[in-house]
Amino acid sequence: MAAEIREQPEAWSRFLTHGQDSVVCAARRIAQFRPRHVLFAARGTSDHAALYAGYLFETLLGIPSGLLSPSVLTVYGARPDYTGTLVVGVSQSGGSPDLVRSLAVAGECGALTLAVTNAPDSPLAQTADEHIDVLAGPERAVAATKSYTAQLLALCSLVKELHGSSDQTLRALPDLAHGLLDRQEEPIGRLAERYRFAPRVVAVGRGYSYATAREAALKLMETSYLFALAFSAADLLHGPLAAVDASTPALLVAASGKGGEAARSVLPRLQGQRADIFCVGSPESVRAAGAGIVLPGPVPEEASPLLEILPAQALALRLALLRGENPDSPRGLQKVTKTL
Amino acid sequence: MAAEIREQPEAWSRFLTHGQDSVVCAARRIAQFRPRHVLFAARGTSDHAALYAGYLFETLLGIPSGLLSPSVLTVYGARPDYTGTLVVGVSQSGGSPDLVRSLAVAGECGALTLAVTNAPDSPLAQTADEHIDVLAGPERAVAATKSYTAQLLALCSLVKELHGSSDQTLRALPDLAHGLLDRQEEPIGRLAERYRFAPRVVAVGRGYSYATAREAALKLMETSYLFALAFSAADLLHGPLAAVDASTPALLVAASGKGGEAARSVLPRLQGQRADIFCVGSPESVRAAGAGIVLPGPVPEEASPLLEILPAQALALRLALLRGENPDSPRGLQKVTKTL
Repeated sequence: MAAEIREQPEAWSRFLTHGQDSVVCAARRIAQFRPRHVLFAARGTSDHAALYAGYLFETLLGIPSGLLSPSVLTVYGARPDYTGTLVVGVSQSGGSPDLVRSLAVAGECGALTLAVTNAPDSPLAQTADEHIDVLAGPERAVAATKSYTAQLLALCSLVKELHGSSDQTLRALPDLAHGLLDRQEEPIGRLAERYRFAPRVVAVGRGYSYATAREAALKLMETSYLFALAFSAADLLHGPLAAVDASTPALLVAASGKGGEAARSVLPRLQGQRADIFCVGSPESVRAAGAGIVLPGPVPEEASPLLEILPAQALALRLALLRGENPDSPRGLQKVTKTL
Repeated sequence: MAAEIREQPEAWSRFLTHGQDSVVCAARRIAQFRPRHVLFAARGTSDHAALYAGYLFETLLGIPSGLLSPSVLTVYGARPDYTGTLVVGVSQSGGSPDLVRSLAVAGECGALTLAVTNAPDSPLAQTADEHIDVLAGPERAVAATKSYTAQLLALCSLVKELHGSSDQTLRALPDLAHGLLDRQEEPIGRLAERYRFAPRVVAVGRGYSYATAREAALKLMETSYLFALAFSAADLLHGPLAAVDASTPALLVAASGKGGEAARSVLPRLQGQRADIFCVGSPESVRAAGAGIVLPGPVPEEASPLLEILPAQALALRLALLRGENPDSPRGLQKVTKTL
């Protein structure tokens, strides 16, 4: 897991160099299809990349987006009318039968299907009309790290290609990530010591960064067995805030931009519950939170999630080690999860 | 909260008698509009009613459905093309500005809008093209109970009206709920004692009952301040299962039907983690789990969520009281939450 976290800038550079052809091909096919809306089929970490991509499609392209519930197709056997719908399957392994079946059924029901995987020979890649290989290289730790950010990069590249906007801002990311990975070592080491005996954590973000909060929570659950809740900054206030108290670490993701500003607005409420707050975000957000890591920049808001997750990945790793767990091989899990 | 839990059968009878006109009107307008897909805007408890309704629209009507992210419209100011889209706002109070704004913007962008609220004079009801009043009566406890099941009933009635299927099965629900509310008192009292010192809980369901798992978790967070995670039975296996151990109560929702069978399939995995399992569901599921409450029936699968949530509401109430908390007025929350 440590090696795979470190490999991320290199994996991104590889995709930015060698992944563009598949992005251009997929974008051309999608543009011809002119989708009326977009649905994503994904599980676990890939579900968070899908969540992120939904915000991209809606905000940059104005195409309504959402997450598909595979059980509708696989358990209940429904056959919705997917005419004019782009269905995107996101999966590291491309091997979960429910996702493969969902894309096959969606295609039969009129959808254009796209697979975004780290496994070009996988059933999911073979089933879809189009495929983008995220080129993260073999991932061996059960907790996905580099395949997640490679998915974010591939999906962001695709939407920027469809949008006709430059990917120049994405090209700066590998260097920025290198610097952050070095710089975060020491503060994340201290944060792991601080959370050594924490039984739980809450992660909060909004907009693009809601996906980061969800993924940070999952990493902490998978490797350190913390009960980690993640909410959009708005949903937190509609009930779950009550469960937050002085023994609850709160990880606030609040990068520069509109989503980050909206997320930052919950700081007084978290402080009111006496949560122990750590912020990953803009200088203003970290200052307001009183503790945290400032993200490098400038980075456009929609690209921030690639950087935001790096401290959380490192925290999950360090905390698992401190707790005597094996982050590469969490109890009860295998690398490829097959659900129906 | 205790009174409002008990009032549910009566509230449902009221809706089944007096709510049908608004259901028929809304259904007529929706049928004329012929939506290509459906998006729901909701927060907190109402978000779970929306999640349930999405399964109904997809499974019974074959119309792709999803949850709308208000921040796309309110924070980022995007204006997606909602032509042919039905946008449904679900809210007890009808008062959260982000939902009101989302429905207004969706209408401007081509959507037909429907509000499902417990407040016919609310801004959300006034903003939408159509409105269904769930007729739950005034709800005073911060943790929503009767307004939630009234929302489920209203949305199920609407989909059945659109589907042209009889609502006869719904008419049996109030009596079945009366019996369950009496019968569950003693086992839920014992379960609350058992969970007295539990720091966390995981709730699991699938399909229609995934909404029940989510809502059960929220009730326990709001009133008893437990860290409560909820997953679909499939998503649980894609990572979070690792965080479950012998000190984790697991609430499995597995009613009769396809979703319940799929949920039951995770029992061996939960048992493998040595979770302390309590099942709300079919006789087979409760027997396989070794502990639980058998739901009354027969009830068609899509109506089960109205009954499934009753034991969880009672558990949240009893556990809060045992822990010396005030379930009517959780710390940090108000009845009407206004987010932007």
